[in-house]
Amino acid sequence: MEDIQCQKDERNISIDRVGVKGLSYPVSLLDRSSGTQNSIGQIEMYVDLPRDFRATHMSRFIEVMHDYRDEITFPHMKGLLKTIKRKLAAERAEMKVDFPYFVEKCAPVSKVRSLMRYDCSFHGILDTVMDFIISVKVPVTSLCPCSKAISKYSAHNQRSIISISVRFKKFIWLEELIEIAEQSSSSDIFTLLKRPDEKFLTEKAYERPRFAEDLVREAALRLDKHKEILWYTVSSENIESIHAHSAYAFLKKDKRVIKNPNLSE
Amino acid sequence: MEDIQCQKDERNISIDRVGVKGLSYPVSLLDRSSGTQNSIGQIEMYVDLPRDFRATHMSRFIEVMHDYRDEITFPHMKGLLKTIKRKLAAERAEMKVDFPYFVEKCAPVSKVRSLMRYDCSFHGILDTVMDFIISVKVPVTSLCPCSKAISKYSAHNQRSIISISVRFKKFIWLEELIEIAEQSSSSDIFTLLKRPDEKFLTEKAYERPRFAEDLVREAALRLDKHKEILWYTVSSENIESIHAHSAYAFLKKDKRVIKNPNLSE
Amino acid sequence: MEDIQCQKDERNISIDRVGVKGLSYPVSLLDRSSGTQNSIGQIEMYVDLPRDFRATHMSRFIEVMHDYRDEITFPHMKGLLKTIKRKLAAERAEMKVDFPYFVEKCAPVSKVRSLMRYDCSFHGILDTVMDFIISVKVPVTSLCPCSKAISKYSAHNQRSIISISVRFKKFIWLEELIEIAEQSSSSDIFTLLKRPDEKFLTEKAYERPRFAEDLVREAALRLDKHKEILWYTVSSENIESIHAHSAYAFLKKDKRVIKNPNLSE
Amino acid sequence: MEDIQCQKDERNISIDRVGVKGLSYPVSLLDRSSGTQNSIGQIEMYVDLPRDFRATHMSRFIEVMHDYRDEITFPHMKGLLKTIKRKLAAERAEMKVDFPYFVEKCAPVSKVRSLMRYDCSFHGILDTVMDFIISVKVPVTSLCPCSKAISKYSAHNQRSIISISVRFKKFIWLEELIEIAEQSSSSDIFTLLKRPDEKFLTEKAYERPRFAEDLVREAALRLDKHKEILWYTVSSENIESIHAHSAYAFLKKDKRVIKNPNLSE
Repeated sequence: MEDIQCQKDERNISIDRVGVKGLSYPVSLLDRSSGTQNSIGQIEMYVDLPRDFRATHMSRFIEVMHDYRDEITFPHMKGLLKTIKRKLAAERAEMKVDFPYFVEKCAPVSKVRSLMRYDCSFHGILDTVMDFIISVKVPVTSLCPCSKAISKYSAHNQRSIISISVRFKKFIWLEELIEIAEQSSSSDIFTLLKRPDEKFLTEKAYERPRFAEDLVREAALRLDKHKEILWYTVSSENIESIHAHSAYAFLKKDKRVIKNPNLSE
Repeated sequence: MEDIQCQKDERNISIDRVGVKGLSYPVSLLDRSSGTQNSIGQIEMYVDLPRDFRATHMSRFIEVMHDYRDEITFPHMKGLLKTIKRKLAAERAEMKVDFPYFVEKCAPVSKVRSLMRYDCSFHGILDTVMDFIISVKVPVTSLCPCSKAISKYSAHNQRSIISISVRFKKFIWLEELIEIAEQSSSSDIFTLLKRPDEKFLTEKAYERPRFAEDLVREAALRLDKHKEILWYTVSSENIESIHAHSAYAFLKKDKRVIKNPNLSE
Repeated sequence: MEDIQCQKDERNISIDRVGVKGLSYPVSLLDRSSGTQNSIGQIEMYVDLPRDFRATHMSRFIEVMHDYRDEITFPHMKGLLKTIKRKLAAERAEMKVDFPYFVEKCAPVSKVRSLMRYDCSFHGILDTVMDFIISVKVPVTSLCPCSKAISKYSAHNQRSIISISVRFKKFIWLEELIEIAEQSSSSDIFTLLKRPDEKFLTEKAYERPRFAEDLVREAALRLDKHKEILWYTVSSENIESIHAHSAYAFLKKDKRVIKNPNLSE
Repeated sequence: MEDIQCQKDERNISIDRVGVKGLSYPVSLLDRSSGTQNSIGQIEMYVDLPRDFRATHMSRFIEVMHDYRDEITFPHMKGLLKTIKRKLAAERAEMKVDFPYFVEKCAPVSKVRSLMRYDCSFHGILDTVMDFIISVKVPVTSLCPCSKAISKYSAHNQRSIISISVRFKKFIWLEELIEIAEQSSSSDIFTLLKRPDEKFLTEKAYERPRFAEDLVREAALRLDKHKEILWYTVSSENIESIHAHSAYAFLKKDKRVIKNPNLSE
């Protein structure tokens, strides 16, 4: 049977990424509390394609994914990317897995337990070196400092999504990034709350008013201190309760670069 | 050229709806303030298919849509559905158009003007009679009465989406339904607010605490009073600021049916 | 601490549904091949609210969900709904769970194995009786009979989504509905295919050309024959390869109603 | 009334982007055929925030958007970004507008006319210089060369989305990028087709089989030749008809960089 993909291509154009996208697959992940967690990944897998070849062999990505589905972890993703490079004769392999991740939380006063969902991702690229980024999206409460300062009582507050991505030295738990986001908010949020918890969180948020700008700076202070983190981005999208659009803030820092604090970046 | 669609079908199964879905088309609508408004419709168009025919002629829906795109209004939609019935030799024609609709609003204190988007829809079915439903989705603020009552200060609040659908006698403006939803909320919301407006809305919401249940009941009281409305549904989805899920309430009423208030429905 | 929710409501309006929506939670399901399958549910839970009460107690839904998360099956969902009725003093409890469900499939020629995702749902309502609907969305290939008949060679084909919902007597596997949808298509589809499989499926689809209308009628014939099924709806949305919109067909049948085939419905 | 936003910030962290996101607003655009086109923009607007200030003034973005809504064009966007820089005392202003854009197309044989939707965007950043990117997403048909080569008859085909982004010298029409994408496909697609058109497109696609890799290379050849284009990215996502996931290819080229074609990039 003819292998059209292997035909020589005369157009002299190399392609940065060829592969599969929108693939949904069950995956098994490391979980700090319970060892492993089952989840469902939304997957992209790519290689580079040299100018000489017409096309890649898409089915091989799926074969590799199927083999590795029980071990989507930092060390195994390197093995997975190596396997892709070899099987597809590529110089560069890339994979992104987006997945929901659940953490059991305990309500602040009643101590009732429930699971919170965080949308996370692993993104790895292997050419001669491995580059790896992990990301979390953390829903929190933000309460507006301006609204609090100018109003007779109360302040508008809302659900915000704090997103953090990091490059790191050896290893970092998703839970560590989630904690940094939650500590940086006006208040963290929970799936199950009883009335004493609701009172506690309402008051806590009012005592810690924070703009989108404050949320990302608070997170940046914590990300700066974390020894394992080499590089990060952090954003907050506030789903404003007094508008139908969001307020947004974003910042990026590479700790590997020596900075002169007297110069603006 | 063979007309496969017209082949006789032997399976003896009539089909309730055949047609097109996910069609995006520019439309022109009636606007209470400015006469007409340009928008972009997301369109579904269907007919019934008798048991004898293999398939319908999908291209005819597009021809009709193209002809009617400048007059997506209640009276013209009846003409459109009649045309579909005739062109497709159907007993029943159906059309749903979802579209964003913008209304200029004036901030409560500063009086600055801006446009608010409301996601609306028209849904018409014509067989021997015409059935027609219009719907609006209105973003508002809700402030939790429980949180206010139990907390030392403040109360959690959030963006909520109040959805209203109605059947009516002669004519009703989208703007009337939008006003009913906004009046039923803790506070309506705006695209552009200056600080005195923000203070006003923060305080207003605190003075009008409302559960999802309150929002739909408040809207129901107003929908009950509106003489033109024969039937309605109303729901509120509160995008909770202390949870990552929503609180929700929904109710339906047919005013054409005589009700005995002593009996539960 | 005051219980605002329990306040007497004077507006004299009962509410059809109050509860939670947009809740994401890990669930455990029955799997025909392997006993159980872990998945992630997107959850709605509601009760009715009598005219006398101001609001419901939203946290109780989460408590019940947390307790039942390891047994989201037909028999357990009845228990879950009973528990909700009792805990929330309601006449009527409702739950809808949408979840991805994976089935291992074997490619037709190469016999390589991979997992296919199907988006499914369970929808239960318990008042004095239990009403229960299960649904599947099945991606398949459809190939256009008209395009085949009028063209010198080839025919346009595309991914279609066949959706089936059923009420049943005692029990039915999701896998049975998935098989009905796949058998009704021009060809079923797979996550992993080698070249001999691709040849097989290309030719199979060309030999079984089917309109959206054919897909739902073919499924209806099979659903009619299935003894366990009492009621069904089936639709097909064809993501047309020659248009940017979809072709769509839908039909509904209640086998419990005696029909006179000489009368149009 | 206190200006909390202007408070001095002691955390010594500058922020890359602060502003608004998820804002929907009607916009007016340049249209090659008819002069102007009304559309609805999905808008993001940002400035940088120096380390000394606590927060930005979000309402000013909306004021600028409201003033400029009737002229979202390349020259006016520079004015808009200048106005933002001035009003918000920023070093850098950024705006992204995503919008549907409709072009009238004429079917290849019947010559019937209909409107096709293309999702487009303008993305501008102004600091000391102006950087500007325009993008289009173009739905087309792709037909698989492998499936054609190995099958007795037919070939699987599907809707694909070709995305092109460019930086340019003076001016370029969205329509030029749309044409490049459509010419690079197996066949372009239409909203309204009669049977002779369907035959024409079915045969055309079979005569021009193209992988995702071919689509981006064909587009790259045309983008290379276009004198006005300085830099581009092009991708194709094929919504596979034999899989539930997509095949994908992406490449990027900066023509401003001198390249040695003997070296791999």
